[in-house]
Amino acid sequence: MTPAATPAYRRLSVEERRSQLLASALSLFAHRAPEDVSLDDVAEAAGVSRPLVYRYFPGGKQQLYEAALRSAAEELRHCFDEPREGPLLARLSRALDRYLAFVDQHDTGFSALLQGGSVVETSRTTATVDGVRRAAADHIYRHLGVTGPGPRLRMTVRMWITAVEAASLIWLDEGKEPPVEELRAWLVEQFVAVLTVTAGRDPETAELVGTLTAEA
Amino acid sequence: MTPAATPAYRRLSVEERRSQLLASALSLFAHRAPEDVSLDDVAEAAGVSRPLVYRYFPGGKQQLYEAALRSAAEELRHCFDEPREGPLLARLSRALDRYLAFVDQHDTGFSALLQGGSVVETSRTTATVDGVRRAAADHIYRHLGVTGPGPRLRMTVRMWITAVEAASLIWLDEGKEPPVEELRAWLVEQFVAVLTVTAGRDPETAELVGTLTAEA
Repeated sequence: MTPAATPAYRRLSVEERRSQLLASALSLFAHRAPEDVSLDDVAEAAGVSRPLVYRYFPGGKQQLYEAALRSAAEELRHCFDEPREGPLLARLSRALDRYLAFVDQHDTGFSALLQGGSVVETSRTTATVDGVRRAAADHIYRHLGVTGPGPRLRMTVRMWITAVEAASLIWLDEGKEPPVEELRAWLVEQFVAVLTVTAGRDPETAELVGTLTAEA
Repeated sequence: MTPAATPAYRRLSVEERRSQLLASALSLFAHRAPEDVSLDDVAEAAGVSRPLVYRYFPGGKQQLYEAALRSAAEELRHCFDEPREGPLLARLSRALDRYLAFVDQHDTGFSALLQGGSVVETSRTTATVDGVRRAAADHIYRHLGVTGPGPRLRMTVRMWITAVEAASLIWLDEGKEPPVEELRAWLVEQFVAVLTVTAGRDPETAELVGTLTAEA
């Protein structure tokens, strides 16, 4: 017989325990509004006691939310990783597929975060979200082979990224319609269309559009 | 000699005083971040005492901010008022001119409000901002002569409205460059471009694009 003092589960290291708590928090925050997640829920999902959650996250729910958000942001940045080879629009399509899969898997949390006015929103959460946007823009410039993008190209890329976020929110609102493949193809077409509009006013962008069109 | 009991200024009615306080608050919130505006600033700008401000706005700065925001939202809705006559894109250009003039006049407040994470942001301020977005979309549908827009048209219009907001924020960030006329013309071109992309997937939008192109 196993002595009662030996726990049935393996003891986790500090890092493992922290990761486990974060993963539990993230999966709760992904599918509920932040105000509908309590520390008790996190403790229960992780199979630990509430004081243990506090030991790792003394700032309570707000700290846990921000840590979960940073971890989600990290995951989202990985969505943008794409080898710099093959046609540009095919690379963009693959990155968008991963981004939209992330949106699909974190639906409620994604909406709550980006719709604003949430109880857990602070300048730190805003900075995390802005960091992801900047990373997305930097990836696009890198793939386009642009090192110091001019103001018109920058504005166009940032507007398109915002439009992709808006489309993702609306897509969630509309019960994930149209099908994700259609949404993705449409967003890629919009990317080309808005760049083409800017090309009419900006030689740098005109050159890029020339490359994109030559590949197609 | 004027008796000392007669004040040099005319007594304002309750409604007039409230409007005066709101106007003072709005002009402060337009050019400073909300955390940099105090009730004392509002009292001083309105030439009244701090207790008088509290009498009208017992909820203090938060209440004053929300009331000023509602008043700004009302003003912004008026920007969209445009007679339903003449070419559609000329109407859109005029409405955008007024919108961008509003952005120009309320620069810091506009950025603070839309960048999120502000101390005064609540679900009520978010709802006010969303109300303006919805009003903008409704105006566009009305001018396009659409009563029950389909999901693809709705998504396109809402994405473009979000992109206009993003462009406005970036424009403020970039020291109001490019010149406002160029920004406005470019946003109109983007409107046509994104509708044209959607037209390839949606007969309702295709018909509208046909009308827009025929007018040009």
